[in-house]
Amino acid sequence: MFSCWLSRLCRGLSTPTGRVTHLIQGSLSRRLMLSSQRIPELSSFVARTNTCGELRSSHLGQEVTLCGWIQYRRQNIFLVLRDFHGLVQVVIPQDESAASVKKILCEAPMESVVQVSGTVISRPPGQENPKMPTGEIEIKVKSAQLLNTCKKLPFEIKDFVKGAKEFVIPSREPGKFYCLPQSPQQFKQLLMVGGLDRYFQVARCYRDEGSRPDRQPEFTQIDIEMSFVDQFGIRSLIEGLLQYSWPSDKDPVVVPFPSMTFAEALASYGTDKPDTRFGMKIVDISDVFRNTKVGFLQDALSKPQGTVKAICISEGAKYLKRKDIESLRKLAADHFNQEVLPVFPKANRNWNSPVAKSIMEEQRSELIRLMEIQEDGVVLLTAGEHRKACSVLGKLRLECADLLEARGLVLRDPALFSFLWVVDFPLFLPKEENPGELESAHHPFTAPHPSDIHLLHTEPKQVRSQHYDLVLNGNEIGGGSIRIHDAELQRYILATLLKEDVKLLSHLLQALDFGAPPHGGIALGLDRLICLVTGAPSIRDVIAFPKSFRGHDLMSNAPDSLPPEELKPYHIQVSWPADSEAEKSSLNQPYHPES
Amino acid sequence: MFSCWLSRLCRGLSTPTGRVTHLIQGSLSRRLMLSSQRIPELSSFVARTNTCGELRSSHLGQEVTLCGWIQYRRQNIFLVLRDFHGLVQVVIPQDESAASVKKILCEAPMESVVQVSGTVISRPPGQENPKMPTGEIEIKVKSAQLLNTCKKLPFEIKDFVKGAKEFVIPSREPGKFYCLPQSPQQFKQLLMVGGLDRYFQVARCYRDEGSRPDRQPEFTQIDIEMSFVDQFGIRSLIEGLLQYSWPSDKDPVVVPFPSMTFAEALASYGTDKPDTRFGMKIVDISDVFRNTKVGFLQDALSKPQGTVKAICISEGAKYLKRKDIESLRKLAADHFNQEVLPVFPKANRNWNSPVAKSIMEEQRSELIRLMEIQEDGVVLLTAGEHRKACSVLGKLRLECADLLEARGLVLRDPALFSFLWVVDFPLFLPKEENPGELESAHHPFTAPHPSDIHLLHTEPKQVRSQHYDLVLNGNEIGGGSIRIHDAELQRYILATLLKEDVKLLSHLLQALDFGAPPHGGIALGLDRLICLVTGAPSIRDVIAFPKSFRGHDLMSNAPDSLPPEELKPYHIQVSWPADSEAEKSSLNQPYHPES
Repeated sequence: MFSCWLSRLCRGLSTPTGRVTHLIQGSLSRRLMLSSQRIPELSSFVARTNTCGELRSSHLGQEVTLCGWIQYRRQNIFLVLRDFHGLVQVVIPQDESAASVKKILCEAPMESVVQVSGTVISRPPGQENPKMPTGEIEIKVKSAQLLNTCKKLPFEIKDFVKGAKEFVIPSREPGKFYCLPQSPQQFKQLLMVGGLDRYFQVARCYRDEGSRPDRQPEFTQIDIEMSFVDQFGIRSLIEGLLQYSWPSDKDPVVVPFPSMTFAEALASYGTDKPDTRFGMKIVDISDVFRNTKVGFLQDALSKPQGTVKAICISEGAKYLKRKDIESLRKLAADHFNQEVLPVFPKANRNWNSPVAKSIMEEQRSELIRLMEIQEDGVVLLTAGEHRKACSVLGKLRLECADLLEARGLVLRDPALFSFLWVVDFPLFLPKEENPGELESAHHPFTAPHPSDIHLLHTEPKQVRSQHYDLVLNGNEIGGGSIRIHDAELQRYILATLLKEDVKLLSHLLQALDFGAPPHGGIALGLDRLICLVTGAPSIRDVIAFPKSFRGHDLMSNAPDSLPPEELKPYHIQVSWPADSEAEKSSLNQPYHPES
Repeated sequence: MFSCWLSRLCRGLSTPTGRVTHLIQGSLSRRLMLSSQRIPELSSFVARTNTCGELRSSHLGQEVTLCGWIQYRRQNIFLVLRDFHGLVQVVIPQDESAASVKKILCEAPMESVVQVSGTVISRPPGQENPKMPTGEIEIKVKSAQLLNTCKKLPFEIKDFVKGAKEFVIPSREPGKFYCLPQSPQQFKQLLMVGGLDRYFQVARCYRDEGSRPDRQPEFTQIDIEMSFVDQFGIRSLIEGLLQYSWPSDKDPVVVPFPSMTFAEALASYGTDKPDTRFGMKIVDISDVFRNTKVGFLQDALSKPQGTVKAICISEGAKYLKRKDIESLRKLAADHFNQEVLPVFPKANRNWNSPVAKSIMEEQRSELIRLMEIQEDGVVLLTAGEHRKACSVLGKLRLECADLLEARGLVLRDPALFSFLWVVDFPLFLPKEENPGELESAHHPFTAPHPSDIHLLHTEPKQVRSQHYDLVLNGNEIGGGSIRIHDAELQRYILATLLKEDVKLLSHLLQALDFGAPPHGGIALGLDRLICLVTGAPSIRDVIAFPKSFRGHDLMSNAPDSLPPEELKPYHIQVSWPADSEAEKSSLNQPYHPES
């Protein structure tokens, strides 16, 4: 399964980077690759029609759009544009009507990133450059856009910040440790800044999360990053990749996948990863109860953010027992501190609840109409702040599906694979420990939604991001974003909005200052994806030598004891906890702590 | 480049394992995958014509060879054979002439591994099994071979032995450490024992070698293992893979690659990784000097293993200076303690060496004839034990090539990619510290050459192995072997010949005891291969964020200091070397050792 995936997946991606014969020599170097053949796929998904290196006499007359770095400018008449694939000469228009284009191209510092559109024309006789693969042609520019400016390029190496929960590896230098990466996020962004254009890796990642069910300390990501791409480019790429690599014994994947805003996902499914294989959506029924006399509903609706919400369990009255409903109410009370009321609008079976009876009498018909309630439908109703009310009903919705399926109903067809993009997440969330301050909803490199940039200075909490999650049958199987490529914007978000110490990320900010292209990416969790595709009950079933719940590898007996002499080259010793002495001797350890 | 390789490489491999929808649930479980379609590639390279799961009525009358495990046997008339792809019913022949086949199939314990050849026939009417994909047919067996026997299957987990030089990772359990694997060797062998049939991984490996030039602590292998395969199957697979994935802007790879025995590689090139892009082969000229009066040649030839060897540098007299020859002689003296004599058989320019003059007068014409010496040819001659004389001339051959190319001659065409299989390595070598004892030339799981098995008990030093190396332009880019699948043979080699404590490898021995299939594999060093293909000067040039010579990641500044509170969850503390105190304070570390 894995290698099949990998193969189809690589095939889908290979051509774009397939001809890279010169690889980077340093994180900030932009090596050139002068390809002699047209590779159409190299411009799929991104904001260009061609790469800089591929244009020839055969393209004469074509309208093209190119993205790249300004390598050289001569007398404000010509400039040489460069991307990972080569160089091309661009003619700066001199007529008055194109003054704004000229201004952009002439004022941009060297190594700035620009997008130009224009026509492929012949160079005047005698001006061909036989040493340059594109030397017979040049681009007559009609429009241009400055994508990013560039400071004078340095090649310094700066400090790097550590993420939490990374496994540490002692080195042979006293007191110095390596870390196992949780993800190559900053590295892949720096590759884009370095001009690598497209990056793809089957990345083994490591995360020390202690004991968590259905997580593994070692896992595998399909990790992707591209320059000059927008959210729709990344989504198309992933859709094509999944379609192409999908097992042939299953129904084909239909693309494009539907998408849903985070706001809608929360409002209708109570979660950011909705299982869209079945309905039972959350309905806002606040308006039905504006004039209610039921106390707890009155209380809820009198508050500024107060709402009344409900889900309807079709055939619930037929399949669910009283104890099922009670266990659902207990779950809501225990885990969400929320009161949930079951009502049977058509079954007249409200278990001696005067409140429910009273609701029925007042709002029965309106509820039936609004929620399209059929015979035997059961409504679970709650009240409170929007997010909280939705969350509890989202959880109960899944619990109800489990209960009904245990009774023989099929709500979630096992042959159905329901992909969904969830988009327009908030860029920031209030900090849990201090709701007056903001933290990144995902990570601080996520770009804000273009429509909301003006809100960054006025209402940052309202800003949506360009983050996207890919959800399959209610499981998050991937996520990514368009990244910030503008150093000033990045600095503003880090320093002013997030109150972070920008020194810790100075290496990234500096990289953005030096001609960072617009870029974005995504990572798919390969283990979880394969687990879902194969219908395995746990990701442990699709990993060759999975770790146990406690993080043990039962095959190799890792983690295992090491004699002190094997720790010596790494300049570490074990700090035995005081209460482990008894355990140690009972386990008959082969050695004792030295101290 | 990398993803291009990966892609083509995966495509070459994908179909065989592409349909594995049920993955292993434990290292010893053999999960079934009942595929409904014929996948011809699944039987390429291996000792079967078909998999057990694929035969249908459409195959009636075909002669087939199957490999698998005995799942079930009924009244010594039928047995059910199983492999990773499914089950098939086999009819045991009852006639006298097939007594030996019957004996094999009836006496083999359940779960033993067998190969059977026979004809696909219809089941008698009424005996079809519609629940079994192969239920319409059965195999009328003509011949059978027991590939391995099986003890009663357990599912115990045994201790695992640690390799040296692995990075260690402290865990949250006091005194317990993970290791980063140097290679998945034992794991992939156990997957084959578990019935996985074919394994492929782009494996990230880690090796703490301290500071070594052109090695990286983190590197990538294309790692492959297959059941029921022999050396030629693995070699064909790799040849096809390289041919398929070869960059299209280079001359196509011609397959099959030539192969050379280790003995020939040593005798002609003085190394186990010959650069076959150019000649200058080592020639044994002992016979020319049988009656020599030159003292050091006489001395050498009087010893039992004594030889005289030479290489001829064409045009050497024209391109090499006296100081070049002197530096070659010094290299031989300094690094090999070997005397090397330059002679100019046709140039009469022996730099006042009376010995060389004397050689010339006596053996000149014979030498010219034997070594096909042209005008300006220079002979470098040495004498001594075969292996040592070859090694020094092998080294000088490469040095001479460097010298001549520095003078403008082209010996090694940069457009030429010269692949070579080196085979028939010795299985054992004398231990360096105690030449009376043996150690494995590669690793103790390597199978002996089938022709030499009888020598294991009498002359183990003479036994050749089924190890193979793939060499490209004088660089080892891969290696692998057919593994031992017979527990008794493995035990004999470990305990009797290698004097190892078999308890440390009891998990592997037990696995072999329980129906291990014949299997073998290979690993290609992806970084080095890409480095050679792209003509990069170092593997650092084809790795995105390479480590420095000292193992530092200059981008992330790893390894780096960690505050003690980050070490606390891992129950370790730094043991500061006494002499590092001064350095520490001068570096202004953010913390101090606690003890």
